[in-house]
Amino acid sequence: MNLFYSNDITESQITLPEDEAKHCTKVLRKNVGDEIHVIDGSGNLYLARIEAVGKRDCVCTVIEKTAGFGKHDYYVRMCVAPTKNIDRFEFFVEKAVEIGVDEIIPIVSENSERKVLKLDRIERIVLSAMKQSYKATMPIVAELTDIKDVLAAKYDGVKCIAHCEEQEKQLLRDVAAANKTITILIGPEGDFSLKEIEQAKQNGWTPVSLGESRLRTETAAIAAVHTVNVMNQ
Amino acid sequence: MNLFYSNDITESQITLPEDEAKHCTKVLRKNVGDEIHVIDGSGNLYLARIEAVGKRDCVCTVIEKTAGFGKHDYYVRMCVAPTKNIDRFEFFVEKAVEIGVDEIIPIVSENSERKVLKLDRIERIVLSAMKQSYKATMPIVAELTDIKDVLAAKYDGVKCIAHCEEQEKQLLRDVAAANKTITILIGPEGDFSLKEIEQAKQNGWTPVSLGESRLRTETAAIAAVHTVNVMNQ
Repeated sequence: MNLFYSNDITESQITLPEDEAKHCTKVLRKNVGDEIHVIDGSGNLYLARIEAVGKRDCVCTVIEKTAGFGKHDYYVRMCVAPTKNIDRFEFFVEKAVEIGVDEIIPIVSENSERKVLKLDRIERIVLSAMKQSYKATMPIVAELTDIKDVLAAKYDGVKCIAHCEEQEKQLLRDVAAANKTITILIGPEGDFSLKEIEQAKQNGWTPVSLGESRLRTETAAIAAVHTVNVMNQ
Repeated sequence: MNLFYSNDITESQITLPEDEAKHCTKVLRKNVGDEIHVIDGSGNLYLARIEAVGKRDCVCTVIEKTAGFGKHDYYVRMCVAPTKNIDRFEFFVEKAVEIGVDEIIPIVSENSERKVLKLDRIERIVLSAMKQSYKATMPIVAELTDIKDVLAAKYDGVKCIAHCEEQEKQLLRDVAAANKTITILIGPEGDFSLKEIEQAKQNGWTPVSLGESRLRTETAAIAAVHTVNVMNQ
């Protein structure tokens, strides 16, 4: 099954955006009368029939609508410092969406080596991974945010900070097993500063461990998303 | 802490191989009298003092030896079909070693698009990830193996096959929670053939699910390794 994405959907009609229309009609050679599956990024899957194919567009009639397609019953918000090598952060984004993530907040912290991020690239990866893994809800991707704002924010559920300092920590698996709504903070290559860790604790963030291994930023972030998924299976 | 690797270690002396010696003395500018940490790939960590620095080598005296450094208390063997895009398979290898894997068997199955694999590249990634994640035991990496040989092999512990067909399956998390020694088979982009799945079941492989999401080959393989890790924490 191939999924197409559109944000131009009415009760009865779907218009595919240009790149999706091209992929549908030029690459996959779908034509008038063919049935296709379309997602809206808000949780709905549509079965639709192609009615008209133009040079740059493709218009379909809705046959059937399924709500909550590919939905999971937990909420995980990942606050992650993008890596110096952007491929690694992009790999995290792709894997997180495949496994199941609801919100990604890229952060800049004291030891961050990367302080710029091209959001349109990240959004394309999110869309592609969402279609690839059969999901209809597009995770939220925030702008690059200063860690101070994240540390001070009020989030529903439990807030966890995964750092490498030798301090008392809970296992993320245990925290995830007990909480359906969870925010997890993953630091940059040089880890959080002691000041940031202290600030987090004062603001109600729980220090967590992902296990015995020392993981790279993107590995820790993927492992955290998957830990939440496993503990909610 | 930087870790260096050597396979030339006696009771009292360590000689670093050329590339490690260069990294140690040229890049990190270590010199005679400095103390360094060395792993042997067999589970031992050494604290050593540099005694002599040559153009291409570096000889050290052993100060202290620690056995079982970074060891985990389970055994996971991953049999994975390398992806068409080799970057994705290499990413799996790196992440698996960081999280904790004991053996990797690259496989060729009916729907495999990749039937050649450069093992020296994979071995370099394994070594680098092992040092990065503070482990002293080098996972075994086998030659590219026909799936028929893997399906027929006798392995200790439980054997699991993760496929996408809608059939009765156990959750990998439950199988992993109950077994300390586990072999997991992950198929290529086009999944296993029905014949391979049937053959596996006849040979005692347990069909498992990694959860609700449809995951790419390398994501499934990383998720499987991490599931075993989480269930053994």
